[in-house]
Amino acid sequence: MTPLKNDRYLRALLKQPVDVTPVWMMRQAGRYLPEYKATRAEAGDFMALCTNPELACEVTLQPLRRFPLDAAILFSDILTIPDAMGLGLYFETGEGPKFKHPITDKAGVDNLPVPDPEMELKYVMDAVRTIRKNLKGEVPLIGFSGSPWTLATYMIEGGSSKAFTKIKKMAFAEPAILHALLDKLADSVILYLNAQIAAGAQSVMIFDTWGGVLSPRDYKLFSLQYMEKIVAGLTREYEGQKVPVTLFTKNAGMWLESIAATGCDAVGLDWTIDIADAKARIGNKVALQGNMDPSILYAPAPRIEQEVQDILAGFGEGEGHVFNLGHGIHLDVPPENAGVFVDAVHKYSAQYHK
Amino acid sequence: MTPLKNDRYLRALLKQPVDVTPVWMMRQAGRYLPEYKATRAEAGDFMALCTNPELACEVTLQPLRRFPLDAAILFSDILTIPDAMGLGLYFETGEGPKFKHPITDKAGVDNLPVPDPEMELKYVMDAVRTIRKNLKGEVPLIGFSGSPWTLATYMIEGGSSKAFTKIKKMAFAEPAILHALLDKLADSVILYLNAQIAAGAQSVMIFDTWGGVLSPRDYKLFSLQYMEKIVAGLTREYEGQKVPVTLFTKNAGMWLESIAATGCDAVGLDWTIDIADAKARIGNKVALQGNMDPSILYAPAPRIEQEVQDILAGFGEGEGHVFNLGHGIHLDVPPENAGVFVDAVHKYSAQYHK
Repeated sequence: MTPLKNDRYLRALLKQPVDVTPVWMMRQAGRYLPEYKATRAEAGDFMALCTNPELACEVTLQPLRRFPLDAAILFSDILTIPDAMGLGLYFETGEGPKFKHPITDKAGVDNLPVPDPEMELKYVMDAVRTIRKNLKGEVPLIGFSGSPWTLATYMIEGGSSKAFTKIKKMAFAEPAILHALLDKLADSVILYLNAQIAAGAQSVMIFDTWGGVLSPRDYKLFSLQYMEKIVAGLTREYEGQKVPVTLFTKNAGMWLESIAATGCDAVGLDWTIDIADAKARIGNKVALQGNMDPSILYAPAPRIEQEVQDILAGFGEGEGHVFNLGHGIHLDVPPENAGVFVDAVHKYSAQYHK
Repeated sequence: MTPLKNDRYLRALLKQPVDVTPVWMMRQAGRYLPEYKATRAEAGDFMALCTNPELACEVTLQPLRRFPLDAAILFSDILTIPDAMGLGLYFETGEGPKFKHPITDKAGVDNLPVPDPEMELKYVMDAVRTIRKNLKGEVPLIGFSGSPWTLATYMIEGGSSKAFTKIKKMAFAEPAILHALLDKLADSVILYLNAQIAAGAQSVMIFDTWGGVLSPRDYKLFSLQYMEKIVAGLTREYEGQKVPVTLFTKNAGMWLESIAATGCDAVGLDWTIDIADAKARIGNKVALQGNMDPSILYAPAPRIEQEVQDILAGFGEGEGHVFNLGHGIHLDVPPENAGVFVDAVHKYSAQYHK
């Protein structure tokens, strides 16, 4: 493989010294970029884009042509695993993802296969290989998966949800069925992420978008427990290089200690926690990724720059910070504002790395 | 006025001794009750129900006929103030509340009147008077309002929102306009709640449903600051009786200390925090209200009873706990399960009050 020219992102995740704080954006490839919209129109629809390795590579690389980002992230959907299990993923305009065959009972869980990543999910592995090759060692490639709990919410609710009543009904009335599903999903995610690593992903991230809708006890029971199983099952070193793993649960600021205790290398933060507090609590153990409110990107350039400086000052000196938004970039953000953000991170962070 | 027969709720809010832990449910009047559906059908639509004092009284009292609840809460909508300001509240089936004339700019804010509660909101005050009279001193009556930030989200987004991009755009690009709106709303809420107290509400609660979508700094700046202004402006004693005030921000478990420091009597908790932790952090200063996950009410009776016992044990001995759900009851919960919940609180809490 080509040697890596910019390894700031991997070094920061491993709490090693860097010259400036590395930065990437959650959903950096996507609907806020006109070139993305053009490629998506060419593909036909969203899943056609995800399943075409050349086009998935193209949209992965588009933001890197605009901005000096320190990492690329595989362009894919978080629901590829349930789709490969046979649930029939589809998208209705303006409605988010849906499943034709949601899980409702024990038989539905028992009948689910554990997908072979190089068979049913080969299109994802092909995208990883294509992107890694086309990156030519410029920056590292991040692979990812949804967490078991987050995948299960879509599989049981049949799509997006506000109150998660179906999965919670199962959690509280028939917990054994839900645990069987979560365990099968954890096994599937381990295979999926390890295959991404073998295909060329240099770091992996687990997105637990919906763990924060649970109580502290239920978060540990239904979400964190299965992420911990995944962390334990991942390839942590590949071809002599460490493969850092980042866990991100939205709205989990109160539970950072237990997330950091899973054995992951880094914890993703949303913007509802002060990064200085997060560092004081878990910064000696793991790296931190985050945590600007994505809505700041609507503001004029000086306000964006000020916010970046505030967060950098909050983390302060020392290693182990990957700058990012606290969640995905909004689709109507002007691309030039994303550029202001990325440049500000590099410009104002040098003083903290001496 | 008739002397109060059951004052557990008021006593608990003031951290005074009680025989058993008082309990009520957020949204205890509502769509999970068949008798509510019948009354609403009689009224015609939701706003017709809210604006008819006799029918608003009827649905307020319905849950008290079924369950031995320790408080009644005014049946109304949180968006009455913006509606009285002229924004044109309406409801589309299955879509939640909407405004015909959302706020988009400075002129929109400048032109907003501060409603006179006994004029434009007289229907609410009439409902309070009617309910208080018909309660005949059985239990206290809770009045309420949305918080300025929460009201502003609906006024600027034009209805419900997922990412709150319009109000955040204003917060970060034109903060002075948003502050002017929030300040006018705080003044309006003070008048509104004081009028409810004068009309017969024996305690008031401020619902900040959406404060938790902000960063810690922005929560203090755009939400908590204005709730603090309201607390300072409220009638805290009326006709020789203390009028306790409860603040509730959803997803604010990390910020409990600053909420408790506003001068309120009690802090409402959602279920994402362990009540034992909350008590350790702020229990010496304020009473706590909460905090069972409303989805537990989908479970079989023994599971509901177990959860109630766990939360009671979490709070442990000592005064200052009002049992409640961590948010509103779900509309498809069997009413008998709500009964199991209420009975369990009384049954299992006596041991903690000796």
